[in-house]
Parts: sequence; C-alpha cells; structure tokens
Amino acid sequence: MIQKEYEKNEKTVTVSVVNFNPVWGDKAANLQKIKTMVISASQEGSNIIAFPELALSGYECGDEARRDHKPCSMHEEAAETIPGSSTAEVAKLTKELGVYVLFGIPERDEKNPKVRYISVAVIGPEGILGSYRKIHLAPPPTFTEEACFKPGNDLPVFETKYGRIGVQICADFWVYPELSRILCLKGARLIINCAACMVGQTGPEFIAQITGCRGTENFIYAASASLAGKERTLSYYGRSTIAGRAFPSFKQIFAQGGDREEIVSATLSLEKGQPPFDQLSLEKERIRSFELCANELKKLAESR
Amino acid sequence: MIQKEYEKNEKTVTVSVVNFNPVWGDKAANLQKIKTMVISASQEGSNIIAFPELALSGYECGDEARRDHKPCSMHEEAAETIPGSSTAEVAKLTKELGVYVLFGIPERDEKNPKVRYISVAVIGPEGILGSYRKIHLAPPPTFTEEACFKPGNDLPVFETKYGRIGVQICADFWVYPELSRILCLKGARLIINCAACMVGQTGPEFIAQITGCRGTENFIYAASASLAGKERTLSYYGRSTIAGRAFPSFKQIFAQGGDREEIVSATLSLEKGQPPFDQLSLEKERIRSFELCANELKKLAESR
Repeated sequence: MIQKEYEKNEKTVTVSVVNFNPVWGDKAANLQKIKTMVISASQEGSNIIAFPELALSGYECGDEARRDHKPCSMHEEAAETIPGSSTAEVAKLTKELGVYVLFGIPERDEKNPKVRYISVAVIGPEGILGSYRKIHLAPPPTFTEEACFKPGNDLPVFETKYGRIGVQICADFWVYPELSRILCLKGARLIINCAACMVGQTGPEFIAQITGCRGTENFIYAASASLAGKERTLSYYGRSTIAGRAFPSFKQIFAQGGDREEIVSATLSLEKGQPPFDQLSLEKERIRSFELCANELKKLAESR
Repeated sequence: MIQKEYEKNEKTVTVSVVNFNPVWGDKAANLQKIKTMVISASQEGSNIIAFPELALSGYECGDEARRDHKPCSMHEEAAETIPGSSTAEVAKLTKELGVYVLFGIPERDEKNPKVRYISVAVIGPEGILGSYRKIHLAPPPTFTEEACFKPGNDLPVFETKYGRIGVQICADFWVYPELSRILCLKGARLIINCAACMVGQTGPEFIAQITGCRGTENFIYAASASLAGKERTLSYYGRSTIAGRAFPSFKQIFAQGGDREEIVSATLSLEKGQPPFDQLSLEKERIRSFELCANELKKLAESR
C-alpha cells in the first residue's frame, strides 16, 4: 500500500546527515555554518540535509538549569517561533537550491512565549513545512531538558519530492521504536533523527546500531544526524549514520561519520520493489501487532 | 517499579544461546543433542539455556508446503502437545540440573490435532512453565510457515529464579519491536529470541545488531539463539548473540557466536541500579508513548 502512493516521487534521493559542532549560544555563527554546509552538500548533489538536535543554539543548558532546575537563559533567548527569522533565512536557501533542510532549533510557542520545545524545523523548496517537537525529554539529575522545555505530543509526517518523511529527536528515536512504527504506518519511507549523543552516555557504536535497527525493522531508510566535538562542557560522539533496507540484505549501513565535524552522505534508491518484503502484507500485520499490544496495555492498566 | 519486584531473585544469571544445527526430521537425534548440550552448558555454569526456532524438528518444511501450499508431513509427525513426550524428558533434566531450558518445537494444539504452532517450550527446575507461540508467520512464496502452522496470539511472561523473562520467535522479535516493549511492560528483564536466520535473507551481522537494539531500547538483556549450518536445503547464519544494557554504556554485545554449532554464554548482572536509567520513569513514559500510538492508530483507521 505504501508503494503505490510514491509512484509520482523521485526514484532516488541523496541524503546528508551532518556531524555538527555548534558554537554554544551563538545562533548567528551556527546559522551561518548551517547555510555554508547546506550549500556545500547541495553542490555535492544532496537533496535532503539534516543537522542535529538544537544545532542552531547548542544543546547544553546553562548552569542554572542543572543547579536550580530553571529554564536556561541561553535557550530562552535563542528560542524562535517557526516560522521565524532563522527558518525564514534557511527557506530562502532551500528555495534557491531546491533542497530540503532539517535542523534542530529551540522553538518558542507561538501562543505562549514562556513555552519552548526541542524542535526540528523542516524546510523545503516549497517553504517551511513545519516542525517536529521532541516528545520524551530527558530528566534530571543527568539531563536538564525538562527544566527548560515542554514535551511535544504529535507525530507529523512531511510530504516531499522524495515521498513522505518522518522526523524524530534523539530519545524518541533511540528508545521508543513504537513511535517510528507509527510514522511508517503513516507512510514515511525515510525517518530522520536529529540527535545529541553525549560522550560517556551511549558508546560510539550505538548510533549506527540503533539507526540500522530502525531502518531494518520498518523496511525503510533511517538517518541520524548527530552533534560532534566539544560544545560548552559536554562532548558528542558524531558518528552520523545513514542506514536501512537493502535488497537482498535486511539491513545496511550506507554511510557513517567519524567523531569530527563533517557531512555524511548516501544516495538511496526509492524504486518500487523490495523483495522479499513486498509479500509481507506489512500494513495489515503491523496493525494486527499494534492491536495485540493495545489489548495487552489495557489488561496491564486494569491489573493495577 | 520493575526493580523492586526482583529483590527476591538471584543477583546474576549465566545465559547460553546455542548455535544449533538440527538433523532435519530426526526428533530423537535432536532431542539427544539438546540434552547433551544442556548438560555441557550446565557444567560450565549456565542457568538458562536456549535453543533456536524448531530446533527439535528442523525449521524447513517438506517440498509439499512450497509446491502445494500444504502442511508438510515432517512437521505434522513431529508436532507434540506441551506438555508432551519431549518436554517431559527435558523437564527431568532441568529438575536434576536446576536450570531453565527453552527450545523450539512444533506444538500440536491440545484440542485440535490438525492445528500446529511454531512454539518455544519453557522448562525449568519447577517443571514445564508453558510455551510461546510465534505470532507473525512468514508467508509464501519465499517462506512456508503459513502453509503448515497457525499464528499465536498471546504475549506471556515466565517467572524464573532470575526474574520474569519474555520469549519471542524470529520475525516477532526482529521486526515487531512493540511486542518486546509490551513484554518489558509486563516485567520481563530478559527477552530470549529463538530464531532461524537463513543465509541470504538477512546478512550475518543482522542478529547482533537487532538483539543489541532490543536490549538497548528496553534497558534489558536480550539474547538470540540461532540455527546454524546446513539443514535440509537451507543454511543458517548461527551468530547467536547475548546483548543489552551495560552501565555506563547504553548497549553492549556480551557474547556472539560464529557460524558453526556452538554454545554461546555470558554472565549478566541483575543487580538493582542501572544509572542513568533508574531516573527515567520508564514505565510511565512507555505507557504515555503507547497511548500516543494508540490514538494515532485510531485516527489512521478512521481516515481509511
């Protein structure tokens, strides 16, 4: 069922995920670097270029978030609505170059300026397509996300020239496989994960392993863009990865970055026909599986 | 929440997953080899010993299943109820040795002898604990499971001295992460996957990758027992793997087999405290994630 709706789309796509080292709290510098890297990736043939979690501002909160469990002033000041000035500036570039760009940004709620989300802006040749807001915020004492941001509660998919894509952010992708599954049931054929993997938290091989697994288990492509290098006090693994289905193998790592700032790219076939998976009545079986889980969840809730 | 209930349990467990090469259709030979390997693993200190999918009979169907889409006579003859003669024989051994054994078996339905399941029998020092029946059967033309077996529809967890364990079989584990998640919500701290990975279908690195991912995304241990070597006409990858959480890294492959018949073992800590995961209000967040998915599924169903 997913295949037919994609007949009008491009038959290949070149995806870039950027190992990005942000200058902490310097939006102007980061935006300039994002634009430079977009131009560079586009010149190399990239169609979709993704930057990590909070690439525009830096991921880390200021000391007040950890010390007092308060929103940090850096993210308060950096936060923008979407559309807003940075997304508008990137939209000029995506229109000019004919590419899609995704980047992590602290998003300010349009209605309530005191509310912020850890978001990814999705921008294409058509303009600003929208944003994905991180659903699972990492809690204290190790993490400060909950002190500074509110959780999202929506799983949008975005229409592009290359078909529908899903977006996730870090923990939502690493440890909530059911969210990726729902994005696939909504027709996503590529999931882009914009992440921040701190050195010491996950191990460097984690990024390729989970990205490969999400691609494999959903029979789609999955790509993780990861922060790299040292930021304020934290360092990140880099290792941005593009992975997924590849006939006749269930999975393949198509491209994987090192630990420094770099653009990691792969050209992926979007052609119809992914034997032996076409036979698997995927949608029907996935819905059956979810219904079984929903029943089990109901029983669990009743037993408590 | 999961941790407290395990205070009465053992603090470490040694798990073995067996790269098993069955003699096709020769239950007596396979049962004898299972028993010999259980004794051998037990002598080396194993507490839980798992054999792959349909290890007792061989995985492959006879030609009639592929040619005529009919049940194969080999599995018809090999199928047993649980309890039944093979499980009773293994139960004598598990009682004597004080170990848990899981092995793949064609299970005959107690009420309807024409109905068979691809099952895993779970047997401990306490006796036969039950069976898990494969939920997602692989369809023709590549696979013959649907011609010969009926799908299961239940996600049991099993109480052991080492805490609650969940069991899955092959595709249920590889491509339905939501099923593993539900087993964890039911308190499983170890998931054992009894699998048959055919050469040419998945790539050899697939087994460690997905087993590591299931362990990581659920913050549990996961172990896959895989058929190995040539059977009737098919060959299998082996590469049985034990993986999962390991402080301070999110994931670790503890042990991984080669492509030949062998016993692959690892000793795992079951101690309380898995920083930084204890902070994550796992159960609450997982249920929230599932509820979001249930809503999305409802909307998807309504939109069609």
